[in-house]
Amino acid sequence: MTKPLILVTNDDGITSPGIKALVEVAQEFGEVVVVAPDKAQSGMGHAITLEDTLRKKSVNLFGDIEAYSCTGTPVDCVKLAVNVFLDRNPDLIISGINHGSNASVNVIYSGTMSAAVEGAMEHIPSIGFSLLDHSIDANFETSKKYVAIVIKSTLDNGLPEGVCLNVNFPKLGEAEIAGIKICRQCNGNWTEEFDARKAPSGKEYYWLTGVFMNYEPEATDTDIWALDNGFISIVPVHSDMTAYNTIDTLKNWKLG
Amino acid sequence: MTKPLILVTNDDGITSPGIKALVEVAQEFGEVVVVAPDKAQSGMGHAITLEDTLRKKSVNLFGDIEAYSCTGTPVDCVKLAVNVFLDRNPDLIISGINHGSNASVNVIYSGTMSAAVEGAMEHIPSIGFSLLDHSIDANFETSKKYVAIVIKSTLDNGLPEGVCLNVNFPKLGEAEIAGIKICRQCNGNWTEEFDARKAPSGKEYYWLTGVFMNYEPEATDTDIWALDNGFISIVPVHSDMTAYNTIDTLKNWKLG
Repeated sequence: MTKPLILVTNDDGITSPGIKALVEVAQEFGEVVVVAPDKAQSGMGHAITLEDTLRKKSVNLFGDIEAYSCTGTPVDCVKLAVNVFLDRNPDLIISGINHGSNASVNVIYSGTMSAAVEGAMEHIPSIGFSLLDHSIDANFETSKKYVAIVIKSTLDNGLPEGVCLNVNFPKLGEAEIAGIKICRQCNGNWTEEFDARKAPSGKEYYWLTGVFMNYEPEATDTDIWALDNGFISIVPVHSDMTAYNTIDTLKNWKLG
Repeated sequence: MTKPLILVTNDDGITSPGIKALVEVAQEFGEVVVVAPDKAQSGMGHAITLEDTLRKKSVNLFGDIEAYSCTGTPVDCVKLAVNVFLDRNPDLIISGINHGSNASVNVIYSGTMSAAVEGAMEHIPSIGFSLLDHSIDANFETSKKYVAIVIKSTLDNGLPEGVCLNVNFPKLGEAEIAGIKICRQCNGNWTEEFDARKAPSGKEYYWLTGVFMNYEPEATDTDIWALDNGFISIVPVHSDMTAYNTIDTLKNWKLG
């Protein structure tokens, strides 16, 4: 029996500790190939490279495991891996472990999750993993145990066509984890506060900063609620962005 | 009565003919401010600039209209405009007119549409407009007539919280347009065919190319069907990517 082929990618770049943790877990389940960005690509969303070329470099960062760093975005990495580098379709694509949350609306800004969404769009079961800890020396040990559980369940059960998983881990030790909760994406957003500064030339420039606002703090079925209450959150995600409940409203508009 | 404030942006860059066409229509409806990328940002999706600064430049490209080019992505432009540059909240954000289709899954790759989605996330009625013609000298005259109709209806009716519109125009003259159709996002994707080449150094590099595949060619309620049949397509779009019909499936998984 052929071992499952597992493609690993991320958005923090191929040298980040989070992807190393993910590769270590993935090895228990099959043959692993890593194709990840050569630099940090956080906040790249579903960006692809249309106006430039893409290059890859073979890297020796994961022992015996075949690994390539790429010049493009996380979505580019998935496209290149599936369509060019791999000689058969992967059985699973996993992305992360991201240093920082991808819960709620972060899913739409996240390169980690966009790689998983792209995997689902390419008909491959895909999962994005994120830990609510931005620090470079985040401790992934507890996350790794649950990554294994989610990978095993996904390989056993499969995923519906076009659907991937958004898995977020609270920054907690194993004894404090309340369990795993299946959720929906919380309705919330970042309230931006741009930091405006002056360059030595006198010209203004801006840094994006912000504070997350939960628009439905009372709801108990959201990923933010789960994480705030010590649970690991899993949200099924797809690429259909149609606001179905607005279709009838629009049909009543007089559009000439 | 204060005239509506209309923010105009795009992803093809502030010098593209498509944004000029959009500004010309917007002027009929209110006070217009343009904040758009200083270079082409096609395929940038919902990318934001986290690791670099953002700069703006006042430009004189649209007669008397206040206009700024920005170093960031289309989503950065919306965030900066709403949170820094404008002294009151815009009543409408319009993005485009994109040179090329943003129907079906293009919505997720598109900087044009991501700007509109970001507008909706900031609680502002927002619309992305695209013409199915990639050429730099595309004819926007017919599109402009319908842009006016959609802007008027949106200002008159408003849009539900968090919802924006994805409007695509077929490449047809006015006499050939079959009408306007409210649709859902077609299920389809790009089949990638990377063009692998060798640099003079002997190293390989890749260009992303692809062919669009419609996974549901029989369905008549999709944006692709509408456009293929001479209609202007309007899809309501939101940022909730939850695959709701998979939640119960996942709740039946044994997750330890």
